[in-house]
Amino acid sequence: MSSADGPIEALALLRFRPDGLVIGHEPADPRVPQLSVLDLAATRGDGVFETISIGRGVPQALEAHLARLAHSAAVLDLPSAAAAEGPWRAAVLAVAEALGAAAGLPEEGFVKIVLSRGVEGADTPTGWAYGTASPDHSALRRDGVRVVLLDRGYRHDVAHTSPWLLAGAKTLSYAINRSAFREAARRGADDVVWVSSDGYLLEGPVSSLVILRGGRLFTPSTDLGILAGTTQADLFAWAATERGLHGAFEPLTPSDLAAADAAWLVSSVRHAVPIRAVDGREHAIDAELTGAMNAFLRDRTR
Amino acid sequence: MSSADGPIEALALLRFRPDGLVIGHEPADPRVPQLSVLDLAATRGDGVFETISIGRGVPQALEAHLARLAHSAAVLDLPSAAAAEGPWRAAVLAVAEALGAAAGLPEEGFVKIVLSRGVEGADTPTGWAYGTASPDHSALRRDGVRVVLLDRGYRHDVAHTSPWLLAGAKTLSYAINRSAFREAARRGADDVVWVSSDGYLLEGPVSSLVILRGGRLFTPSTDLGILAGTTQADLFAWAATERGLHGAFEPLTPSDLAAADAAWLVSSVRHAVPIRAVDGREHAIDAELTGAMNAFLRDRTR
Repeated sequence: MSSADGPIEALALLRFRPDGLVIGHEPADPRVPQLSVLDLAATRGDGVFETISIGRGVPQALEAHLARLAHSAAVLDLPSAAAAEGPWRAAVLAVAEALGAAAGLPEEGFVKIVLSRGVEGADTPTGWAYGTASPDHSALRRDGVRVVLLDRGYRHDVAHTSPWLLAGAKTLSYAINRSAFREAARRGADDVVWVSSDGYLLEGPVSSLVILRGGRLFTPSTDLGILAGTTQADLFAWAATERGLHGAFEPLTPSDLAAADAAWLVSSVRHAVPIRAVDGREHAIDAELTGAMNAFLRDRTR
Repeated sequence: MSSADGPIEALALLRFRPDGLVIGHEPADPRVPQLSVLDLAATRGDGVFETISIGRGVPQALEAHLARLAHSAAVLDLPSAAAAEGPWRAAVLAVAEALGAAAGLPEEGFVKIVLSRGVEGADTPTGWAYGTASPDHSALRRDGVRVVLLDRGYRHDVAHTSPWLLAGAKTLSYAINRSAFREAARRGADDVVWVSSDGYLLEGPVSSLVILRGGRLFTPSTDLGILAGTTQADLFAWAATERGLHGAFEPLTPSDLAAADAAWLVSSVRHAVPIRAVDGREHAIDAELTGAMNAFLRDRTR
């Protein structure tokens, strides 16, 4: 499943029954075209995904990712059978195993799983699991990112008032998230914290926001139409048990971020990345706590 | 380029230089996978598209569509060379010709053109032009659609305040537009008119809104972060010349729609579809004007 010359990678294609039930997966060559130009993933961004980190060969927070895939699929009215956790788990494990079997696999990798509504007119989903080695994020985890605050356009309550906007589902329609990174670069920054149109901190384009204040950790509540963070959840559990830092979901504003003792963008592959500046103003990094967070996240075995 | 057994269809793949310049196109089999699972069209909805109607073999409003593709590409910071109009025009004409050469082509078809940021890590765009016959929309054009008004979540001025949200670009990230159709169906309707969070009518998920009031046509202004309608533009030009109905861009509210003498959702493939009900309240259809609009739109020769 991987080439001696190319990147270390592996691909499994999911197989579906016409009613959407996943009936298995098979290995495929990621360097060969596998998708139709009529696949709704490519023509409408109409599908959902998850990215699961692999630490020393073990998929991390796998059950939380599979549950979130099923939630996202439900929000998009994808066939519930298409997001059944068993077959997706098997595909992730197969890809992780194929990566582990490849020579030269570094300590960290990831598997991305994608569930698309399928080829236009066919009414059968398509799906795949693609795995590869992660870039070396050690400098990022130590030195952190400069972030800018950007308006997400939506009110904080949009998930309740307007569920058709799919807030809180991890869809393939991510063009805005990528555009936000380009805007950050134009402003001399590396990353973004989204802010609701009425002034609440939300999340990063590909991460959850966590802040430390007065010996507690806080993250914005998922009823703001943001993703439930799988890495944030693991981190809160560890911090409470191992560090006596209890975590809470709370409405947060830009002044909460400015006043925080430390802050991080937290995600599956990059883990806990400290925020070193907000809109050009330097922000303190808690190097010791950041290092401990990342040691925990890197060594998770489930 | 088409199969005797399958649908009448044709596909051309664009070829790009590493710097993004389009250097040509080649025919390809649409029933064979052509896209990588790492194509950013499929993994991030990161690209732009246009759908161009074909009337009696001729692409309609082609120059307006190519100009809008270039505009959308610029909003997404895609390489400007990748959206150069000449090569895309040639690809559309080749696909239209291939459709015309196929036996049994009905009067109407369309070509969809897609420009993606390309395969992750490759930094070279991908693109294609896919054409097929249109469904028979004659009943839709006569009987119309029942629409619901749905909150788009954004303020009317979001394109100015927050350009990173890509309002007004025709991106591949269309999951919300498809979700809106499902919400309409749940409410017993067929289609949607988006409304800004501060109460202005915007557009349909795949169409422009046009209303008739006091012998004039109105459509919402594109400074509301909506697409400049190619079909709406042709329609306004025709209506002024042939019917003495002058068109204007104006802020419109739901009460303007309720009070309109007639209203339409206007788009490349469906043409002018009358609105027969709004949120469950019946709305008058101007059958004579609707028929004349659609006769004009169907028979456009450029």
